[in-house]
Amino acid sequence: MAQFISTQKRQGYAIISIAKEPVNSFDTAMWQALHAALQAVETDSSMRGVIITSGLQRDIFTAGNDLKELYAPLTSAQQYAIFWEAQSRCLVGIHSSRLATAAAIRGACPAGGCAISLCCDMRLMTAGAGGAIGLNEVALGIPVPKYWAGVMVQVIGHAAAERLLLSGSMVPPKAALQLGLVDELVDDKAQLLPRAEELMQQAVKLPGGARAATKAGLRGDFDEAWLQYALTWEAGPRGFARITDPNTVASVGAAIQRLSKGGGKKQPQSKL
Amino acid sequence: MAQFISTQKRQGYAIISIAKEPVNSFDTAMWQALHAALQAVETDSSMRGVIITSGLQRDIFTAGNDLKELYAPLTSAQQYAIFWEAQSRCLVGIHSSRLATAAAIRGACPAGGCAISLCCDMRLMTAGAGGAIGLNEVALGIPVPKYWAGVMVQVIGHAAAERLLLSGSMVPPKAALQLGLVDELVDDKAQLLPRAEELMQQAVKLPGGARAATKAGLRGDFDEAWLQYALTWEAGPRGFARITDPNTVASVGAAIQRLSKGGGKKQPQSKL
Amino acid sequence: MAQFISTQKRQGYAIISIAKEPVNSFDTAMWQALHAALQAVETDSSMRGVIITSGLQRDIFTAGNDLKELYAPLTSAQQYAIFWEAQSRCLVGIHSSRLATAAAIRGACPAGGCAISLCCDMRLMTAGAGGAIGLNEVALGIPVPKYWAGVMVQVIGHAAAERLLLSGSMVPPKAALQLGLVDELVDDKAQLLPRAEELMQQAVKLPGGARAATKAGLRGDFDEAWLQYALTWEAGPRGFARITDPNTVASVGAAIQRLSKGGGKKQPQSKL
Repeated sequence: MAQFISTQKRQGYAIISIAKEPVNSFDTAMWQALHAALQAVETDSSMRGVIITSGLQRDIFTAGNDLKELYAPLTSAQQYAIFWEAQSRCLVGIHSSRLATAAAIRGACPAGGCAISLCCDMRLMTAGAGGAIGLNEVALGIPVPKYWAGVMVQVIGHAAAERLLLSGSMVPPKAALQLGLVDELVDDKAQLLPRAEELMQQAVKLPGGARAATKAGLRGDFDEAWLQYALTWEAGPRGFARITDPNTVASVGAAIQRLSKGGGKKQPQSKL
Repeated sequence: MAQFISTQKRQGYAIISIAKEPVNSFDTAMWQALHAALQAVETDSSMRGVIITSGLQRDIFTAGNDLKELYAPLTSAQQYAIFWEAQSRCLVGIHSSRLATAAAIRGACPAGGCAISLCCDMRLMTAGAGGAIGLNEVALGIPVPKYWAGVMVQVIGHAAAERLLLSGSMVPPKAALQLGLVDELVDDKAQLLPRAEELMQQAVKLPGGARAATKAGLRGDFDEAWLQYALTWEAGPRGFARITDPNTVASVGAAIQRLSKGGGKKQPQSKL
Repeated sequence: MAQFISTQKRQGYAIISIAKEPVNSFDTAMWQALHAALQAVETDSSMRGVIITSGLQRDIFTAGNDLKELYAPLTSAQQYAIFWEAQSRCLVGIHSSRLATAAAIRGACPAGGCAISLCCDMRLMTAGAGGAIGLNEVALGIPVPKYWAGVMVQVIGHAAAERLLLSGSMVPPKAALQLGLVDELVDDKAQLLPRAEELMQQAVKLPGGARAATKAGLRGDFDEAWLQYALTWEAGPRGFARITDPNTVASVGAAIQRLSKGGGKKQPQSKL
């Protein structure tokens, strides 16, 4: 999947661009590829920041998980464990990165796309119509993973996160800004990456070691608990039991149907 | 005490109405009865939500704990442990319920009444004069139970909760809305239940299993720690020692005196 | 160092004034002296509150740690452990005090000064120009101590704290008020202490035992973890390894140079 992910290096930071048409859906290999791209930047000592963005034609950051990985008839306990580990290692890797991290979000940012952006240090989003961000799993009949919810709690507070998560809501850019779900809006698509780079240039001026150690102090305990939970509970038999629940199978099956029919429309697809 | 609690079932949700004149005070039997009423709704698989409201004549949600259960001369270590367990199992039961939960609050909502409403997923309140909500224990000379404080921290954040709790404050409806202590106000008493039902009808449309699992992810660790602490520390000798402290005995005794004198007044009573 | 700290007792509360010219820098002895002054107030059962303020000529609350304690060439693993213990016992002592606590902040409040004020129950600040507050360690190339960051998270929330801390920012009074980093501003220096005393008089009217027990419920677990971490990790070999890191030695050395040159200027100094 490495062909879908490209990394450009600038002075002090890199831009990771994800472009797997049509919606940047993340299966196991994609999570592994994004994680590998991040690690490649981290191992370059001249790099102190990274911007994650979408290279898709349509205005979609990423639609999140490929539903086939969550649809019991198409996977197995073993494959599910591998998928869950890849996904969690990538997200925890972003959240705990020594780098300054920014998500530059153009348009739709549901579910797993929202999770990726919540793991960054800052989130910029286009203000334009059609954009929306949120962990909308409940609306699709699937539980929000415990630590995805936890990251949203960190970013916007417990009560606001509960309200969004339990109603399966995605919110448009202005509401996202008010909630603190994103840090800044840009009026025009063309300004998204330049503004992200401007902010990143400021961030990488700071002493990187002190910044990284402070970030580790703020997030380390959470990330350790997250990975531990993901590798034991979520990737284990209890996690798999969750997706073999008949209601979940029906919900995910229906969502796959809906998405395969609507695949040609202009409307961004809400996957997981 | 079951005679004081009535449950009406609607399409997909129930309304639990509490009406023990004059102020819905909660002794052991009342906590057990409310818990039993909740569990009866939960075991009905057609039910996906519950609204808790007051059926009192006066504008009082509930005045909270019956002070006799907290007044050392009128109780015993054994009775106190039973009381504490009943109260905590009911509150944790509400907080961890698989159901969508709403508190529909008319008027005064002090102490234990505030605790019940904080354990719900959403809180609606009448905007009218005379209403107020808060964990006002400190003003009465009694500590706020640790996990009651913790639930308020989840709902309005640490700093705002500390400010309210350490000053023993109750806040009027508009201030409560601004703080996030309630989610919405209704102008008129007559709109309270209709609006709560409207919101509940939206909530129960969502896939119940995914909603409940997401809620468990957000609250499960907290609820487990709460029940553990309540059953060991609070219901144990250290918890009882707290209410046998002479200052606390004097404070609670004085509050009982005040309330028994003022029992006939229209003014809502702030019990615990 | 006791000569730099004076305590005045009023009806029900005390005022601790810190005046070690030019910038109230805290070395080991100063942390011990402030802690001792606090404990002296706590052991007086007539005392229910304390205001901490600066008695300096210039508008500085305190510049925080004396950098010599953090500069590896001028200290040793043994001395660093003693310093770290003194500092942490003082800060945890303030944060967990049975007393109502207020910081009355005139002017600059960087780093350790900000940590002291965050450990109080309330923070008042002069609105005047030149004032600023924040844990600006990252800007100086030093990590923010884990539990200092944690206290800021409690006061202003996780996301806002991360933004400030990772950018090493100090914010002016109005922005601090909006963030909740301080609770109230006073227009004029002359109003600072009178207003702090006014608020303290309200706080000490409340039943002290109930207030203290509620505060312990809100902060106790955090404080226990803080002290444990400080005495093992921070004061131990891993903590010392952090300040012997060549980048940190260079950053701290440069800061000491800068401060010793600028010591005569009117501009408040940002130490740690």
